[in-house]
Amino acid sequence: MSETPDSAVQTVRAYIDSHREGFLAELADWLRIPSVSAQPEHAGDVRRSADWLAATLRQTGFPVAEVWETAGAPAVFAEWPTDDAGAPTVLVYGHHDVQPAAREDGWRTDPFEPHTEDGRLYARGAADDKGQVFFHTLGVRAHLAATGRTAPAVHLKLLIEGEEESGSPHFRALIEDRADRLAADAVLVSDTGMWSEDTPTVCTGMRGLAECEITLYGPDQDIHSGAFGGAVPNPATAAARLVAALHDADERVAIPGFYDGVADLGDHERALFAELPFDESRWLATAHSHAAAGEAGYSTLERVWARPTAEVNGIGGGYQGPGSKTIVPASAFLKLSFRLVAGQDADRLETLVRDWAAVHVPPGIRAEIVFGAATRPCLTPLDHPALRAVTRAMERAFDQRIRYTREGGSGPAADLQDVLKAPVLFLGISVPSDGWHAPNEKVELGLLLKGAEASAHLWDELSAALR
Amino acid sequence: MSETPDSAVQTVRAYIDSHREGFLAELADWLRIPSVSAQPEHAGDVRRSADWLAATLRQTGFPVAEVWETAGAPAVFAEWPTDDAGAPTVLVYGHHDVQPAAREDGWRTDPFEPHTEDGRLYARGAADDKGQVFFHTLGVRAHLAATGRTAPAVHLKLLIEGEEESGSPHFRALIEDRADRLAADAVLVSDTGMWSEDTPTVCTGMRGLAECEITLYGPDQDIHSGAFGGAVPNPATAAARLVAALHDADERVAIPGFYDGVADLGDHERALFAELPFDESRWLATAHSHAAAGEAGYSTLERVWARPTAEVNGIGGGYQGPGSKTIVPASAFLKLSFRLVAGQDADRLETLVRDWAAVHVPPGIRAEIVFGAATRPCLTPLDHPALRAVTRAMERAFDQRIRYTREGGSGPAADLQDVLKAPVLFLGISVPSDGWHAPNEKVELGLLLKGAEASAHLWDELSAALR
Repeated sequence: MSETPDSAVQTVRAYIDSHREGFLAELADWLRIPSVSAQPEHAGDVRRSADWLAATLRQTGFPVAEVWETAGAPAVFAEWPTDDAGAPTVLVYGHHDVQPAAREDGWRTDPFEPHTEDGRLYARGAADDKGQVFFHTLGVRAHLAATGRTAPAVHLKLLIEGEEESGSPHFRALIEDRADRLAADAVLVSDTGMWSEDTPTVCTGMRGLAECEITLYGPDQDIHSGAFGGAVPNPATAAARLVAALHDADERVAIPGFYDGVADLGDHERALFAELPFDESRWLATAHSHAAAGEAGYSTLERVWARPTAEVNGIGGGYQGPGSKTIVPASAFLKLSFRLVAGQDADRLETLVRDWAAVHVPPGIRAEIVFGAATRPCLTPLDHPALRAVTRAMERAFDQRIRYTREGGSGPAADLQDVLKAPVLFLGISVPSDGWHAPNEKVELGLLLKGAEASAHLWDELSAALR
Repeated sequence: MSETPDSAVQTVRAYIDSHREGFLAELADWLRIPSVSAQPEHAGDVRRSADWLAATLRQTGFPVAEVWETAGAPAVFAEWPTDDAGAPTVLVYGHHDVQPAAREDGWRTDPFEPHTEDGRLYARGAADDKGQVFFHTLGVRAHLAATGRTAPAVHLKLLIEGEEESGSPHFRALIEDRADRLAADAVLVSDTGMWSEDTPTVCTGMRGLAECEITLYGPDQDIHSGAFGGAVPNPATAAARLVAALHDADERVAIPGFYDGVADLGDHERALFAELPFDESRWLATAHSHAAAGEAGYSTLERVWARPTAEVNGIGGGYQGPGSKTIVPASAFLKLSFRLVAGQDADRLETLVRDWAAVHVPPGIRAEIVFGAATRPCLTPLDHPALRAVTRAMERAFDQRIRYTREGGSGPAADLQDVLKAPVLFLGISVPSDGWHAPNEKVELGLLLKGAEASAHLWDELSAALR
């Protein structure tokens, strides 16, 4: 580095300030492309978005920027080699497709005509995820300006997919096919958020996910509950009892072996979580829920971020219409999902679930259990050098202490971790009020530029941390 | 009576034998009318069936035979006063509508073109219920012939409804409106069966029925199970736990107070049930089920005939489509039905269910419970004089000992008991192989004529028993 850290902060900030108008004008152009991957009529727009991004990345300076085809919507891959022979490779992940949006959903302005008001940029994709992808273009140029480099301090790769809002159906195949070109020492996910504008945070991990459907078969057809009820097993009752057997009285998952290998939250991380200004009644409002409830001994944040769960996503069986029908139904089903944390394995869980169900399904009922594809958990320990590098970059951007969060959900980041065998880091500046997937999605302009600052500081930090 | 019992048996049998051809020809005419109440295109046929029956009953000798309108399909009412001033009134209940039937359902011959083969009469309605209504026309004439009477030994009334196969939606209103004309000292239901051809039986009662739907509301909308699952109550889980709390480990209904007032089965009736040649594997085949299960301490027959139950007829909530959706659902529902036995009351049950649910529904979940109309149980004690009269009439028809059954189901008979305040008796000669509601429904001709014999003997017996 050619300057002291403090002067680097000033240089980066000055560079970003003087280039903000051009940056925002370009982002607005991108946001005007309605790249809604879930709607077939926008397939052309998703492609246009990919083409636009690849062209713009080349203009930014990326020597390589390609549109990669998949069986669905195209992704964009870009690469900017470092001139430092010993430097690590970092792959940035984001997506260029957006959620559907229409005026009639409650948008005050056209969702695809970006609009700035009170320091906020309103548009579909402003925060999720175009804004958070695009701040890297400004960040990397600020990094070069502040360091006097002609190439980034790391070998920088970007993979910006086009189907994230449609469940990333071809993402795993894409990264398996292209694993050689995607090879990296770390993955940086730019598709999350932070606690709040006042409390900048870094996310340290996401939970994994395993899903299964259990179908219970009783009589070979619906039978009369007057003639036979009370004397044969009812599969709807059996399904319900299986659900009741999922948890114990402490709301711990009661499948034997479920917690084997799960490392408990350390006191240090629990203390860090507890420092966050958490308001349970506001959180409940966000959850549209009327009570907090869950595993005994853990706070709400710990439950959603750091503890594994078993959840009923769907249940059904027997008569579904209005009024009543006096039957013992022929079958019933459960759709269950399990959030997994580090130390748990989806393959092992499948065995545990099958063994557990075999114990609880009564004679006369046959259970069929089908597991879907699983997503692994990813977690970077608080003392991991790369996580400390991200933290320092954020500290320099925000001029304040950075705290830690996790994501309760699960995402394609885990596939990258899995296929590329690289740790996953998160850099996001979106805040809960940004309204992902909702009408009037926005990004705070001040935070968006802080994201660019953090990006500008990150490459030097990671270059040092990952050697 | 002008003859000894034995000679009455012979006279009745001879009369029926010499009139069987005409009786069967008339029944075949009726069976040709496709009086399917569930199919609007057959509304005219249901009316034609009612008109045909009223005209035929007048020919049989009933001085009064009227078609009674309802808000749906018409019923037939007929009345034949006795000339014995002190004699009781008996109301026979049956129905003239039939289940849908079509060749493509698996009928070997036209379901509405009666066809006799190996002593069996095949046609839709042969057993359920035209055959069992119509044997009374032959029975009452045999009664007059054998006794030399010009009018029956009881004031005989018939109410033959036209919507039984559609759930009798207007039956309660009809009998409440016409309660004066329907007034009777006993109701005789001719719409059930007996154990088997070799084991003639009399049914002594039916269970009652109460139904409710419980809807459990959690979050105000479906919410993300990654972001919120494990930290808020899930209404599908709550619904399942409610079902799991319906029964104890002995499969007894665990709603406090549920069994209050339920008289246990006496040793005598249990012994009578146990005498029936019950083959559990054959019963399971009829139930299309793969195991017997139910309240500890009771046999299968006791469970379905004489014990109250709580059954899940339908359950639903959350994602119902293919694959998975990682949500905590906003709501879930249960459709429950309870079979009731003598000593239980549907109004009281509603209170018990509400109190029980209040205990089991967790904070953050709101329960909405809606009860439907209930059907009371009906049971005539084994030592009731009227039941003994039916038994003796059956013994004289079958020349053998008559055993007892009950019906596990619930039916409009209970409404008659309720509105007319009269005990309900059952006289039926159908056997399980007759295939009610199934393709190739039939009635055994020998049993059909035994039904006419039993009817012929019944009026003298009831006249004596009900004074």
